[in-house]
Amino acid sequence: MIENVVIIGAGNLATQLALALTGKGIQVKQVFSRTLEAACELAGKVNAQFTNNLSALMPGSDLYIVSVKDSAIQEVMMNLPADKNRLVVHTAGSIPMEALSRFTNNYGVFYPLQSFSKYRNVDFSGIPICIEAHHAATLLQLQQLAERLSSSVHLVNSQERKTLHLAAVFVNNFVNHFYTIGYEILQDKKLNFDLLKPLIQETADKIESMSPLNAQTGPARRNDLGVISDQLNMLQDHPEFQKIYSFVSQSIYHIHQKQNNDLL
Amino acid sequence: MIENVVIIGAGNLATQLALALTGKGIQVKQVFSRTLEAACELAGKVNAQFTNNLSALMPGSDLYIVSVKDSAIQEVMMNLPADKNRLVVHTAGSIPMEALSRFTNNYGVFYPLQSFSKYRNVDFSGIPICIEAHHAATLLQLQQLAERLSSSVHLVNSQERKTLHLAAVFVNNFVNHFYTIGYEILQDKKLNFDLLKPLIQETADKIESMSPLNAQTGPARRNDLGVISDQLNMLQDHPEFQKIYSFVSQSIYHIHQKQNNDLL
Repeated sequence: MIENVVIIGAGNLATQLALALTGKGIQVKQVFSRTLEAACELAGKVNAQFTNNLSALMPGSDLYIVSVKDSAIQEVMMNLPADKNRLVVHTAGSIPMEALSRFTNNYGVFYPLQSFSKYRNVDFSGIPICIEAHHAATLLQLQQLAERLSSSVHLVNSQERKTLHLAAVFVNNFVNHFYTIGYEILQDKKLNFDLLKPLIQETADKIESMSPLNAQTGPARRNDLGVISDQLNMLQDHPEFQKIYSFVSQSIYHIHQKQNNDLL
Repeated sequence: MIENVVIIGAGNLATQLALALTGKGIQVKQVFSRTLEAACELAGKVNAQFTNNLSALMPGSDLYIVSVKDSAIQEVMMNLPADKNRLVVHTAGSIPMEALSRFTNNYGVFYPLQSFSKYRNVDFSGIPICIEAHHAATLLQLQQLAERLSSSVHLVNSQERKTLHLAAVFVNNFVNHFYTIGYEILQDKKLNFDLLKPLIQETADKIESMSPLNAQTGPARRNDLGVISDQLNMLQDHPEFQKIYSFVSQSIYHIHQKQNNDLL
């Protein structure tokens, strides 16, 4: 049973994961970050030691969680003190589990499917945690750990995890960017973004009871060319938003046209 | 004071508005729809008369609400029995109030800023209702009516309403399309869309406490070119989604690069 962990990274996910684990009685023994300040800040929150020196990583922890940006995982692993039996997981959506195989015999993935911010604490209990491990015994350990945090634990292989991550980019990163565009459009005209919040909430709530395809409304679905061309004109000072507006509208129209044809 | 209304239209918004008004004790006297079946269905829900013939529209109602698709508003107005004193409002985001001025001396707009579906009942109490009227006295009447439905009533002119509608298309129609794309990506690989629902909910919740610009995470914001090119490859069977992915990622990167420069 995993009772203590070392966390490598102090970013958004590392922070929220450290807090959640501590909240469930799992000890965070040490936090590493490239910057001493970030390591210290997170370590302070979970009463852990901290370092910005990978060679000073403490040995003997039940689990080492590598939660750094994707492109830094390899470099971190190469600079860990050698220990072929250390249990290491990463938390990345897009990196195959086998990326860790050169560095240890005991590895896996612990991927909470959520968007995290350092200063917004989240409730892990409903967050899907996708796990994978090289050994069956390790998988069981990770499963038990994940189940202490969440009631939604899933065995997901590297290929499936990549697909989930891709879909997550659309429904989170891109969606949030559209909130930003909405914000900018209103700000240009000194209108209050709060007016859109009930609509944003309803849009997210709706798909709990309807498929997103059926929930679709608006000018592109109706192919209301008058409104579409009028709105494109309104975006003339934002050519990038204009381009996005065109492509997304076309895509909405096509997907609903295809559905209508399928129903004929 | 407006005590009774006639509703012209029986679509998503007309349906939800008729239900909400009835719920607040305002009588829906008659429902018109081009198709008798739709008129009958909605009229049955609110205990109203119904017709598919505009010349049979009953006279003497306190308010006539035209809630049809934008491109049909002119045609409906042209076919109403002549009555220059009839109080008429439309419910469209993109149509100027003055579009009604040829047909009556007493007109306005009653625009609930929300996405409606026929069979998903919504709570109007928090929905922003944007009103506008040609006469001050009419504005007051519409304001009193709107306040019976919602605590969020706003005086919004035609130009502002168009801007709100444009922003709403981004945060609702386009966002919902990205839910659809997420759904399709997972369905291709037989993964369950429910796994994305906590993420979708958190994405919407987050902006209650953070600006969307600050809430942004993901490969495009980090400019993680490895993940971006990998995800573009995964979309090779969906060239349309690929194009959207590219443009939105670029737009995220640009907006955050601009913000970083502004901070220097």
